[in-house]
Amino acid sequence: MVQNKSVIFLASPTEYPVPGEHFAVETRELNAELKENDVLVRNLYLSLDPYMRGRMRDSHVKSYVPSYPIGQPVSGGGVSEVTESKNPAFPIGSIVTGMVGWEEYTLVSGGQGLRVIPNARDSKIPLSAYIGVLGMPGMTAYSSLKIIGQPKAGETIFISAAAGAVGQLVGQMAKKLGLRVIGSVGSDDKLDFLLKELKFDAAFNYKKGSILDNLKAAAPQGIDIYYENVGGEQLEAALDVLNIHGRIVACGMISQYNTPNPYGVKNLMNIVGKRITMRGFIVSDFAEQCGADFAKDVGTWLVKGEIVYKEDIAVGLDNAPDAFVGMLQGKNFGKQVVKVADL
Amino acid sequence: MVQNKSVIFLASPTEYPVPGEHFAVETRELNAELKENDVLVRNLYLSLDPYMRGRMRDSHVKSYVPSYPIGQPVSGGGVSEVTESKNPAFPIGSIVTGMVGWEEYTLVSGGQGLRVIPNARDSKIPLSAYIGVLGMPGMTAYSSLKIIGQPKAGETIFISAAAGAVGQLVGQMAKKLGLRVIGSVGSDDKLDFLLKELKFDAAFNYKKGSILDNLKAAAPQGIDIYYENVGGEQLEAALDVLNIHGRIVACGMISQYNTPNPYGVKNLMNIVGKRITMRGFIVSDFAEQCGADFAKDVGTWLVKGEIVYKEDIAVGLDNAPDAFVGMLQGKNFGKQVVKVADL
Repeated sequence: MVQNKSVIFLASPTEYPVPGEHFAVETRELNAELKENDVLVRNLYLSLDPYMRGRMRDSHVKSYVPSYPIGQPVSGGGVSEVTESKNPAFPIGSIVTGMVGWEEYTLVSGGQGLRVIPNARDSKIPLSAYIGVLGMPGMTAYSSLKIIGQPKAGETIFISAAAGAVGQLVGQMAKKLGLRVIGSVGSDDKLDFLLKELKFDAAFNYKKGSILDNLKAAAPQGIDIYYENVGGEQLEAALDVLNIHGRIVACGMISQYNTPNPYGVKNLMNIVGKRITMRGFIVSDFAEQCGADFAKDVGTWLVKGEIVYKEDIAVGLDNAPDAFVGMLQGKNFGKQVVKVADL
Repeated sequence: MVQNKSVIFLASPTEYPVPGEHFAVETRELNAELKENDVLVRNLYLSLDPYMRGRMRDSHVKSYVPSYPIGQPVSGGGVSEVTESKNPAFPIGSIVTGMVGWEEYTLVSGGQGLRVIPNARDSKIPLSAYIGVLGMPGMTAYSSLKIIGQPKAGETIFISAAAGAVGQLVGQMAKKLGLRVIGSVGSDDKLDFLLKELKFDAAFNYKKGSILDNLKAAAPQGIDIYYENVGGEQLEAALDVLNIHGRIVACGMISQYNTPNPYGVKNLMNIVGKRITMRGFIVSDFAEQCGADFAKDVGTWLVKGEIVYKEDIAVGLDNAPDAFVGMLQGKNFGKQVVKVADL
């Protein structure tokens, strides 16, 4: 038996989840008896992503990912060290990435979904990158911008939540492709980051003034792509400003996840009149088509210092629930990660 | 000079256009002096289409088609007879289709946009078909169902305004391709037409009971394609019922054209979660890709009696304004046409 501090899912929230009410830290005993092919990992970093809010829904509501079972740890992407193994693919001491619980140790049945990070101990790349720029958020940005966005040099892209895990990468990739890049964020610190560090062409704080007026001022020639992370009023403004044959990459709508009264978008007629394509996706849709190019391109850019990736690292499992709620409220500055333990 | 009864555009409506206020019948003199390549036509049939409501907007609002100039005749698709010609492509007596005014005679500068209907006088196909099943509405249905809808045998399609100019064809084409076809309409007569004449698998009257409940009952396995002609509440219901990787063919949103208070759609998050593609278009987008197949396929089906095409024919230019308003209100039963004159 292993003492295992965990973040347990307790109940479905209808608005923002509340630590202690909807999820809480508990220490449980883990029966670490491994069967053939099982792997026990010690978790180092956890990825906190907005889509996880959807997994906190009532289990009767169907979706593309299962809801979290009540009484079990919250789970998501992580970087971990193998501490026991009955699986030859994952020897003890190897560093892996995959789906793990929000807990100190996870028993991964059959080693399912794990992937070894080669040379992880000697690399200059921080381990948290494997759940960020080199992981799901990076692949999300890279593949969807390319396949749904169909970006062309000279076009203009507008990105909401542009300092977030995905948005900051979409912006930098679009700059590399020769687009004019506009971002919206929720604080002046983030605004500075977009303009000064990421070299966006224009940006605005959506909490100051009219979103539509800000977007119109930033995009006098309209926009060709809207990279959608927020929904609601920002989507409505984008629809007004999109050009003929514009594309909306529907990655997420974080403004709509924590309210029982979602925003009603009134100008969808623009989709007809301006022949717009709006398309949702999940990252696995594009794995086959883009996976190899993503690893090569983004890995190279990162090592050469051609892209920046800002992370917001909360330390300790005890802080995971607050960090998650903060992320849903836009308090994180960069990709939200929880550091569970040192390597 | 020719006496020329016309329907003149007077002012932009904010709600339903009102005959006498926003457009009115007037007899004007037409200076029928033809220059090189000009053609004078006598109009026989006019096509009344929902998109024309968009052309009645204020001229300051940009769109894919120009707004109607105030003081000029309303214009749209028509079938006409050439009565004078300085254009060798359009000899006197030929029957043509193209864009004409809502008037007895139109002087078509340079013969622009006209197309001769071959053997029109001897054909069993009624002339009105060239602005309906064999014209723009037919091509709209055929091309967008194929290219945006990506229909596959065994899938389910839901069509709003399913007895209209486009909807009735989409449904019959989808049946031919082996889909399960569901339609919504606004009267019980139209419901009977869908079920008994067009052999839809299910249909409902959107004015009776909850749209969402009706759609769920008609589509227990969900829908794979939503063919969107209406917008608002029907779009919202479709988003709830669409399956993973569903497609929305955004052809029109007639419920939103005549109100200053458009409906707010609150469940667009389904586009993300269910990886839906929603795409607007205009028929000319697909002309190159689909034009030849359309003419061959639909022409063959029509001659063989494999498809039905219901038209609602108002007689006389005097009745054109009321017929147009009636169409915007769903009072037409089938494709709305105005018969201006006998051949």
